[in-house]
Amino acid sequence: MLQQDTALMPNFTRSDGRVSELLDRMHEIADLSALGALAEWDQNTEMPEGAGEIRGDQMATLQGVLHERWTSERLSHLLDQLEHASVQANLSDADKGLIREARRSYDRSTKLPRTLVEELARVQAASFESWRKARTNNDFANFAPWLARTISLQREIADRLGFVETRYDALLDQFEPGMTSSKIDTLFAPVREVSATLLKRIQASGHAVDDSCLQGDFAQEKQMALSEAVLRAMGYELSHGGIARSPHPFTTSFGSPFDVRLTVNPDQHFIQASVMAAIHEGGHALYEQGSAPTLVRTPIAGGASMGAHESQSRLWENNVGRSLPFWRGQYQLIRSAFPEHFANVEVEAFTRALNKVQPSLIRIEADEVTYNLHIIIRYELERAMVNGEVAVESLPGMWNAKYREYLGIEPETDSKGILQDVHWSGGFGYFPTYTLGNLYGAQIFHKLREVFPDFDTRLEKGETAFLLRWLEEHMYAYGAIYLPEDLVKRVTGELPNPEHFVRYLTNKFEGIYNL
Amino acid sequence: MLQQDTALMPNFTRSDGRVSELLDRMHEIADLSALGALAEWDQNTEMPEGAGEIRGDQMATLQGVLHERWTSERLSHLLDQLEHASVQANLSDADKGLIREARRSYDRSTKLPRTLVEELARVQAASFESWRKARTNNDFANFAPWLARTISLQREIADRLGFVETRYDALLDQFEPGMTSSKIDTLFAPVREVSATLLKRIQASGHAVDDSCLQGDFAQEKQMALSEAVLRAMGYELSHGGIARSPHPFTTSFGSPFDVRLTVNPDQHFIQASVMAAIHEGGHALYEQGSAPTLVRTPIAGGASMGAHESQSRLWENNVGRSLPFWRGQYQLIRSAFPEHFANVEVEAFTRALNKVQPSLIRIEADEVTYNLHIIIRYELERAMVNGEVAVESLPGMWNAKYREYLGIEPETDSKGILQDVHWSGGFGYFPTYTLGNLYGAQIFHKLREVFPDFDTRLEKGETAFLLRWLEEHMYAYGAIYLPEDLVKRVTGELPNPEHFVRYLTNKFEGIYNL
Repeated sequence: MLQQDTALMPNFTRSDGRVSELLDRMHEIADLSALGALAEWDQNTEMPEGAGEIRGDQMATLQGVLHERWTSERLSHLLDQLEHASVQANLSDADKGLIREARRSYDRSTKLPRTLVEELARVQAASFESWRKARTNNDFANFAPWLARTISLQREIADRLGFVETRYDALLDQFEPGMTSSKIDTLFAPVREVSATLLKRIQASGHAVDDSCLQGDFAQEKQMALSEAVLRAMGYELSHGGIARSPHPFTTSFGSPFDVRLTVNPDQHFIQASVMAAIHEGGHALYEQGSAPTLVRTPIAGGASMGAHESQSRLWENNVGRSLPFWRGQYQLIRSAFPEHFANVEVEAFTRALNKVQPSLIRIEADEVTYNLHIIIRYELERAMVNGEVAVESLPGMWNAKYREYLGIEPETDSKGILQDVHWSGGFGYFPTYTLGNLYGAQIFHKLREVFPDFDTRLEKGETAFLLRWLEEHMYAYGAIYLPEDLVKRVTGELPNPEHFVRYLTNKFEGIYNL
Repeated sequence: MLQQDTALMPNFTRSDGRVSELLDRMHEIADLSALGALAEWDQNTEMPEGAGEIRGDQMATLQGVLHERWTSERLSHLLDQLEHASVQANLSDADKGLIREARRSYDRSTKLPRTLVEELARVQAASFESWRKARTNNDFANFAPWLARTISLQREIADRLGFVETRYDALLDQFEPGMTSSKIDTLFAPVREVSATLLKRIQASGHAVDDSCLQGDFAQEKQMALSEAVLRAMGYELSHGGIARSPHPFTTSFGSPFDVRLTVNPDQHFIQASVMAAIHEGGHALYEQGSAPTLVRTPIAGGASMGAHESQSRLWENNVGRSLPFWRGQYQLIRSAFPEHFANVEVEAFTRALNKVQPSLIRIEADEVTYNLHIIIRYELERAMVNGEVAVESLPGMWNAKYREYLGIEPETDSKGILQDVHWSGGFGYFPTYTLGNLYGAQIFHKLREVFPDFDTRLEKGETAFLLRWLEEHMYAYGAIYLPEDLVKRVTGELPNPEHFVRYLTNKFEGIYNL
């Protein structure tokens, strides 16, 4: 975290009374939101099962107070004033970013009537329950009516939020401000191409990667300690963080950069799950911990977007955390956690095992080569749903056909197919941010290797601080001041460009599979 | 918890529009307060050290929102209407209790100006820091100015809150509604007498209790598991609770009866600390979990007062949890947790050890005979401070003289004397509720033994549910509907009467020390 010289950090023009009043209002909203995030963290880590209903009431009350704050007339008036060109000219980038984000939330809160927001929450809760049961019982028909309901609700939300080209853009913009599906189509085309091609070349090569060294009997308590050790090695600050267990790993913040926590979920028989989740969540957490302390208690502290966030979790997890130089520098952590198991496993074999490519049905188990194909399938289907181009009943067939086409395999059950992810019980527009993250991440990684010609050597020596400090200084410190595309351009010198990912992926897997 | 028939539970007259509006407002306040309680729980159990400052900001923001809610004009208008005799006649006891508590909070919030409340928070924080250092360095002089500041602030608060007889009453009333120092003087006199007399008789008897069986090497993880087992045996519902570790054991609720959690702090070398803390906190938790679900999300869900709360923690800890019948029924929990250590320790020796009487300097380590003397010393001193009868500089001397007089021992340092407790860094009026709890508890225990002639036999068989169900039905379910004195009368048939405690203590320790 940048605790050094706040004079060098992005900052607000507090001397302007309107900025200062906006800040007061944003502090209040950020503080209340942080308490909500804490309640969600508790829900996922410690809350007893019998408290679910009352916690729901508490969260609804908090949402109500936040809605009241976000729709205040005084806020509207203040934003109108601050958006005047004459005022803007004298403002800092941080001011402008704050005003932009406040406007986004004000607009969203006023454009979506409270009844719609409440209906959305109700439908999401019921749809989630239906999805959970449908997945357990492999019963898509039971989930279908809820999916149809979600489609029509999301279309209504898109209409109310407004859009230029397609309804889908309005939903996407919630998670990735400024992004549109036409931009995505351009960005994703080469990704789809390189992934499919590489997969075919790997399968044709006849070379295999053996990942049996990652399997065994790994005590979960020791995996928790190992996760902590790996996170410390990355530079994660435990004095401003915490590590817990939850069924699905996640990262959250109760006031970046000062309180950023994460979870992992060790699998007793497969060490990769906890180690790579720790590095992935660690990437998210480093991003939040790197946010300039001058931005604290505002909506622009933390990450710029879901895609920007995923760029950091994936950069640390894949570009760094699945590389041989990184593990040459850190392998003693693995060996001292499980000395017997890894005594005769060389670091090269360990790293190779982390990079096994295998088309699979399940997104969250996918390797770097196939991962984006899973995302592209989902993106194509959800865009069609939102744009009204598909009947719910035909979705499982479309899903299976796309898996056959892109990955060469087809799920035998909908549970392992269209029902595998929770996302569609809530809404649409989120999935593409995973692949955007991979693209931004590869582009930033490319930049890092240009800046540090001795990048690999330093990783091999166990160094990581050089890399973290650079990312903090050039990216993390700025929080959500800039829109994600602009941020990528500021960090790397060019707008998002998929060629960096294409080149990274090709070089890496040509090497590993000796193509 | 009373999950049975809500028709038999205390309830609100929702058909009255004014009651229903009051309930809506109370739900909102209770939900926000619960999120604050969750944040405090987190602060004491998981929060990283570097998050202290931002958490302080978040709590201050929440207090601001709550203050805004408590001082709303609409609430004032509503209370005025609901307090009309003509309206009251048609209301339930639950309605009346809710109106009374809402009025208390409204009055407090409007009588204390925001600047005073903020100053109080600042002085408390600074005074706490000063106290912590003063205790570490045995340096009362450094704490003295903060204590003086606290005295004058608390006097101002008392003046603003208002009182009939003495300023001290206004402060006391914050924790024990309806209680006054003249009532306390009457209640405490026989307690002081019996404690001092019994202590002298025990010391003169030459009989000793050997508690070496409680000392040893007890793995903390196993103590946590043992605490859980003991709490389950008492009837604590883990599906609506949770057990964590914190430096000082405490119980808290995020919506009684549905989410009530507690902490313990195992001492590796002294098993009594965690076991008796679990039972003590368990008593608090059972009281909260027993609150009628019909009262949920209101300020009268939970306990009636600090004294009423302490009556239950002490009833379970001392009257039940330090009795031979209880341990005859539960001793297998101790033995199976630490089989080797307790293989040759009989349950009689174990229970006797839990009842060792020894005048000590430290309140929280005190036995049942001397405990109230520690409280009475503090009560006498803080009453004198608030009523302006004593100079801060002379307090350590007065403290030591009172210890010499009441307990026959004198601290060699202020750290083990006047600086031992945190309370006076925050304010005054809390201490007497500990002894009130002991009195109420003994009186309720007496009633229980009347109701259940086979009380001991059932405990010896390992039963506890009969006792918990009775307490739930006759006391816990009512939350804070009644003022504490009225509640004691409803439960036991008479107003608080110290003779029950006097008789309980005398009989018990005459037996143990063979007097």
